[in-house]
Order: sequence, then structure tokens, then C-alpha cells
Amino acid sequence: MDSSKAYPMKGGDGISSYTKNSSYQKSLSDVAMSLISDAVAEKLDVLACGTPFRIADLGCSIGPNTLIVVENIIKSVQLKYDEYSFPTPEFQVFFNDHASNDFNTLFKTLPSNKHYHAAGVPGSFYTRLFPRASLHVIHSSFALHWLSKVPQGVIEKDSRAWNKGRLHYGGADNEVVMAYREQHMKDVDGFLKARAEEVASGGMVVVLVPGRPNGVPHLECIGNVLFEVLGCCLLAMAKEGKIEEEKVDSLNIPIYYSSPNELEEIVDRNGCFRIEKMEVMPHIAEPETKDAAGRLAMGVRVGVEGVLKGCLQEETIDELFESYRKRLEQVPSLYSSGGAAIIFLVLAKKES
Amino acid sequence: MDSSKAYPMKGGDGISSYTKNSSYQKSLSDVAMSLISDAVAEKLDVLACGTPFRIADLGCSIGPNTLIVVENIIKSVQLKYDEYSFPTPEFQVFFNDHASNDFNTLFKTLPSNKHYHAAGVPGSFYTRLFPRASLHVIHSSFALHWLSKVPQGVIEKDSRAWNKGRLHYGGADNEVVMAYREQHMKDVDGFLKARAEEVASGGMVVVLVPGRPNGVPHLECIGNVLFEVLGCCLLAMAKEGKIEEEKVDSLNIPIYYSSPNELEEIVDRNGCFRIEKMEVMPHIAEPETKDAAGRLAMGVRVGVEGVLKGCLQEETIDELFESYRKRLEQVPSLYSSGGAAIIFLVLAKKES
Repeated sequence: MDSSKAYPMKGGDGISSYTKNSSYQKSLSDVAMSLISDAVAEKLDVLACGTPFRIADLGCSIGPNTLIVVENIIKSVQLKYDEYSFPTPEFQVFFNDHASNDFNTLFKTLPSNKHYHAAGVPGSFYTRLFPRASLHVIHSSFALHWLSKVPQGVIEKDSRAWNKGRLHYGGADNEVVMAYREQHMKDVDGFLKARAEEVASGGMVVVLVPGRPNGVPHLECIGNVLFEVLGCCLLAMAKEGKIEEEKVDSLNIPIYYSSPNELEEIVDRNGCFRIEKMEVMPHIAEPETKDAAGRLAMGVRVGVEGVLKGCLQEETIDELFESYRKRLEQVPSLYSSGGAAIIFLVLAKKES
Repeated sequence: MDSSKAYPMKGGDGISSYTKNSSYQKSLSDVAMSLISDAVAEKLDVLACGTPFRIADLGCSIGPNTLIVVENIIKSVQLKYDEYSFPTPEFQVFFNDHASNDFNTLFKTLPSNKHYHAAGVPGSFYTRLFPRASLHVIHSSFALHWLSKVPQGVIEKDSRAWNKGRLHYGGADNEVVMAYREQHMKDVDGFLKARAEEVASGGMVVVLVPGRPNGVPHLECIGNVLFEVLGCCLLAMAKEGKIEEEKVDSLNIPIYYSSPNELEEIVDRNGCFRIEKMEVMPHIAEPETKDAAGRLAMGVRVGVEGVLKGCLQEETIDELFESYRKRLEQVPSLYSSGGAAIIFLVLAKKES
């Protein structure tokens, strides 16, 4: 099966990040919202769902994105119930993230006029979080590219996958790439197994995950490029004696950018779900502005600062990202190439 | 009906507080635990409950008490399922408190080996929090004596219930007492209406609330005495010019100590539930030690500091509780009288 035909890339190309680049995020979020709405309209089996209608957002962070997505899902479900002239169900929404997430902030920003019962659920979505058959729409955006942990071999000196002198697998030996890939496959398999237990009859799983288009080598994927450059900046600081080299060796960003083919393979092997829909969204072009490098550097920082903080001082991180910004500014070709995609998946549980 | 016969006081009398007086809390918690276990054993209709089995703790605070109570409920439910040779159900536990509660801390202290799916639910338990018919055991300890707000008349200069120069209703005019009482009745009615919608078939509501025995006048109830003395200390500081008198007028502690008869009246008027069980636990005697006043003052402070903080500076609060401690030390009879009780209620929804 030629997946490039089945899941064609749509439209343009251009500067992008996975971060708080507002106009990009806005357009992306518009596209994502309409994809989710369409998925609910086309695939949700309201006849089987009943009431209360339970929704979970996995990897919700602190908002406001999670609140917007949830409102969108509820609106779409309501439309579907209206279509069948069913009375609007009660909604219960579960916001999930790690126990270290700032749920206090999330809870304080919940709208007072919301039309759902809200709950926060702490824990890793690579494990079970909910009772069996209890959720009707399970959603996760921009979360499944995070691995549950740094692959073991990558931090072991004696391992063939030891990732010496690098932050990520982009420009690394094949063993390192494979270690990341295997961890990702294992993690997503765990995710699917847990969700297969939790999804209710008639329900669906909707995933948006940053990845790379089929056929694009890792080092041409913007995400990998950005981490590779960051790793070079860190190594340069180590060479100058500002950081111990062991620290660079021990630091690894636990993110993997999957391709549509890889995700399809994981879903197939897992066997619990069938893919109802898969779309690959390219980056949306944005006019190049003079501070693009600065915003991009800031975006990457927001994403990975948590990983670096366990190992580096605040001032070291400041210096790292200042040199990173300069490097990106000098070579705009590094990040204007694209080579990345947001992969949108709608999964329905196979009948057993 | 003579409720003093139906719900007899059991045993002793003595020094007590509603606070972190550890040995008192421990004994109380032992008694409460066995009351809850008995209630589940005797009253829970497991034939109607099914799986998942959902438990809510309303007014959970940050633990560890809520975790202990929840484990106790789960154990009791498991025993009941075992008795019927039913397979152990999956448990989902909802921890509820105001959105300003520190859920982050609660989530971080959840035991890693817990046998339930946990969720935090922010919001006032005087309103709806959960989907219809979705909970099997609803529990609330030491929370329902808090009013949803200070009764309006109590803070209005033109009202007959204006509570000038006092922190609480203990020694106040009857209008003030009535304003507090009405707010309490309205609040508990709201609590019962919400719970009547949320409790599932076969489920139960278990409440422990600090109050006073039938026939005990408010000013003989230890809780009221303690607040009355605190109010006197505050007023004395106002007379010395350390606080504006208006502040004393505007400050009111939104707590009401109900009697078993009053609670019975509220449940009857509400009409949604029947009382399956009511027990009145007196305070458990504790040997008088020389720092009893200090611990009592600290206990009251922990309870009401949140109310005072909106109005008074930290140093003013320090000074207030120092003079409070001294006052209590000088007149131990003020707080050794008792006159308070923990009221334990098991409610089952009436069939409609």
C-alpha cells in the first residue's frame, strides 16, 4: 500500500515550530479543530454512547488549549446528538497530565459557565488511567511524541546505543535511532492497550502528534534539526569548559518524531484498533520575519527546559539558548526547510 | 419522636477541638472508620452497584486523611463484594474540594500502589459536581459545617441580623443565630439535592459533621465558645486601636454547628433521602496537659486562618492568636466543658 497516496500531504511548506508560535498555532489549531469536528460527525456512534458522555484530554497541560479543544469536542458531539434528535447528554471531562503538572492553575482557569463536569487525572497516559469502557472520546494533542523515558541503552556507556556528545538521535548512529524508535513503539503500544480498555462502546480515540512525513530522513525533519543544532551549541560550551562533557553525554531529549507509516505499523501490530482516518498536515507557511530565530529558540526552550533543568544551572541554560538563537539566525536554511508534519489519527476499537 | 433515645450519646466527655489534636483525631478517626465500614457492610446494595464502583470524597483537602478514608471505604466495599462472591469491581475515586485547594500536593502524595483510578474535582459541593447517578459511595468528613458563604444579613449594617463586634453567632442576638442557621439549612439542602442527582442506584451518602448534641445551647458548644473568645480578643485589639472596628464588624466565620435534630429536619424537608443511620459521637476525653491551650489555639488558627487572612495582616493574626492562647490558658473552664459532638449520618436515596 502506498501510504503517500492514501495520506497525501496537503498544501504549503515553510517556517515552523512545535511551540508557541502564535499564528502558526492558531492556523494549526483551526485545522485540527475542524478535523476533530469532522471525525466526530462522521465516526462517532451516538446510538451506542448514552449518557453521561465522557471525554478525556490526555497530556492536557494547563490550558488554554485543552479548554478550547474540549469545548470543540462537546459542540461537535452535541451537533451529532441533535442530528439524531437525541437529548443532549451530560458531559464529564477528564483533564489528564503527569502528577507534576500544575493542575491548580488549570482548575482555577476552568470557565465558570462550562457545560460539563470537570475532573483532573494525574498520571502517565502510557498506563491505565480510567475504568474499563468508560470514555467516549479520548483526545491527545502534541503529547505522544514524548517518550515515557530516555531509552536505557542511550545513557549506558557500554551500550552500542550510547549517545555520546548528543542531545537527541537526529545525527546519531543507527543504534541510537533504533533505541529511540523502539521506545516510541513500546510506549505507543502501551498507550493503545490502555485506551483499548478504557474506550466505551461507540467511542473513539483522536490523536494529533508531531512527526515527519513518510520518506523524510530524520535529519531533514525540522524537529530533529533543531535538537541537533541545540546539541552542537551545548557541546561547544562543553569544549569551552563551561559544562562537563559527561553532562552532555547524559542529557537526552525523550522525544521521537514518528512517520505515518511507523504509526500505522504500531497500530497494526497492537491490534486493538483500526485506523478510521489518518491525515498528515504539513507546516503552515509563515512570513519570515527578522526575529524568527529568536521565537523559534524560545519555542524550543519552552518545550525542553524541563529536561535540561534537572542537569544544568539556570544561567547555563540562558547562555545555551542565547548561543542557539545566534546560530539559528546565522543559518536560516537550518530551519526553513520543513520536513515535519502533524499526524492526525482517528482510531476505533476493533470488535473482539 | 424522642431523638435523644433514638440517637443516644455514647460515653465520656472532656477536652476537645476540631483540629489537629493528634490522639483525639486518631481515636475519632478509628471510630469514624468503623462506623463507615459498618455502614457499607449493612447498607450498601452491591447487587445494584455493578462496575466501576465510584467513590467521591467531598471536601477532601490535601490528605493524608482523605487517602485513609478512601482506602477504608474500598476495603469495606471489597469485603461486601466478597461476601456475595462477586468479582472485585474497578474503583474510581474522585477527590473534591474548592478550586483553591492544593490539588497539586494531593496528587503528588497519591500512593503509587493504590488500587483505584484517581481524579480531582474542583468546585463547591453545594452545587452539582458529577453526572447523574454516577456515584456509589459519597463521603464527606468535617466539611459540611462550613457555610457556602457568610449569611448576607450578618454583614449588612441596616440588617437586624448585623453581627457588629463579633466573629461568630455564639453570643450574638437571635437574629444573627437565625441568619447562620438559615444559611446552613439552605446549604445542606443544596448539598442533598445535588447528591440525590449524583448518587447511583444502590449507593449511599456518608457524612461526618461537627455539631452539638440536641438541647445544648449554642454558647455551651465548645466550637462556639472558642470563636466567641477569639472574637473578644479581636475586639480587645480593636479597642486598643490595633485593628479598625469596621474590620471586626465585617469579619464572620462561616461555620454553623448543627444538632442532630436540625440535621434530621433538613433531611426530612429536603425529601430526597431517608436516614439509614445516625450516630452522635461525643468528644473523646484527653488528659489535660499544660500546653492544651496552645494546641487548641493553634488548631483554631489552622481552621480559620483562611477567613482572617483576607482582612488582617499576618502580624496582626500572630498577635491575635498569642492573646487568644493566653486567654484560654487563664480560663481552662472555657474549653473543658465539651458540649459538642460529631454527627455521623448514612443516607439512602428514597425511591421516587
